[in-house]
Amino acid sequence: MIAFNVLLFEGFETLDAFGPVEIISKLPKIYKLDYFSINGGIIISSQQISVNTLPFSAIDTTGVLLIPGGLGTRKLIDDIDFINSIKLLSQRASHVLTVCTGSALLAKTGLLHGKKATSNKMAFDWVCSNGNGVNWTKKARWANDDKYYTSSGVSAGMDMTLGFICDIYGEETAQDICKYIEYIWNRDKDNDPFDP
Amino acid sequence: MIAFNVLLFEGFETLDAFGPVEIISKLPKIYKLDYFSINGGIIISSQQISVNTLPFSAIDTTGVLLIPGGLGTRKLIDDIDFINSIKLLSQRASHVLTVCTGSALLAKTGLLHGKKATSNKMAFDWVCSNGNGVNWTKKARWANDDKYYTSSGVSAGMDMTLGFICDIYGEETAQDICKYIEYIWNRDKDNDPFDP
Repeated sequence: MIAFNVLLFEGFETLDAFGPVEIISKLPKIYKLDYFSINGGIIISSQQISVNTLPFSAIDTTGVLLIPGGLGTRKLIDDIDFINSIKLLSQRASHVLTVCTGSALLAKTGLLHGKKATSNKMAFDWVCSNGNGVNWTKKARWANDDKYYTSSGVSAGMDMTLGFICDIYGEETAQDICKYIEYIWNRDKDNDPFDP
Repeated sequence: MIAFNVLLFEGFETLDAFGPVEIISKLPKIYKLDYFSINGGIIISSQQISVNTLPFSAIDTTGVLLIPGGLGTRKLIDDIDFINSIKLLSQRASHVLTVCTGSALLAKTGLLHGKKATSNKMAFDWVCSNGNGVNWTKKARWANDDKYYTSSGVSAGMDMTLGFICDIYGEETAQDICKYIEYIWNRDKDNDPFDP
């Protein structure tokens, strides 16, 4: 089983994290889902959902890492301990997936330097300002460069996660998940209806 | 503020509940989101998310009710106390929204008798068997009859919630939410790509 590690923090955006989680859960023989925050315990999303988490220290660091966005990123971007932690975790992870302003947190580590990446439209300038040297691409449903997958706003994280699955396990596997959860997948990562 | 009451239970499907929640949260001056289970406390979703909840007794019963589906419904459908509780809550609620097999729980109360409703494709026969006298419609992204909104599988709950918002607050409000969370809305409730 591959660890699929979901990083949570105060003020994370619910669908950024739990949209991808829904999709990954349909491969139960491949991935094991777990939820982490820097010190563990209860974390409250921007939608007032109280979620119990394990501490970062309990992470199987060889797994996949998911970093959501949300209003909480505005504070965390200046938290050196947090950024250093996600840098270490991202270096060790097999793949790193970010959604929305989660891309800013990853960019701040420096690991996206020289790589293509995207984020949501509403906060695009702010995200770019936290990632000098990143090849920021505004018109993208999601972007993939090396082991990094970055998506545009909130819902785009689901399309990206299906893209990630498609790249590794093939399109039929991704489409089977869509059928199971009746999800209408925007399967072309360059088709971004929100930056026409 | 209108209470938007999300009913959770062991083995609820994450996106059934938290997809609609994401959308409703973009009307923060109208709705207040809260999460409930029959006795309160920690509830674990089918995706292993541990969520803290309040008991049913704490619900502002005049609000909107959201009933997700998930594997947990298979046990609850025969739990008379639970079904009686959601019957009472549904009678008092201004609107009741169900996603996926959550439609079976609502149907079991008898409140959908003579009304048009839908559910997911994978469990459609099982859902129908728990709602005699309901006008079950398989080809529907979602259905609305009186104060009841019922959706097909998992992801369709988000389209339905936008439809609910559109009906009450107009299409511009629904489209603004789509833009904000970069969600590609299937806005025609009769357009169901999963029952071609």
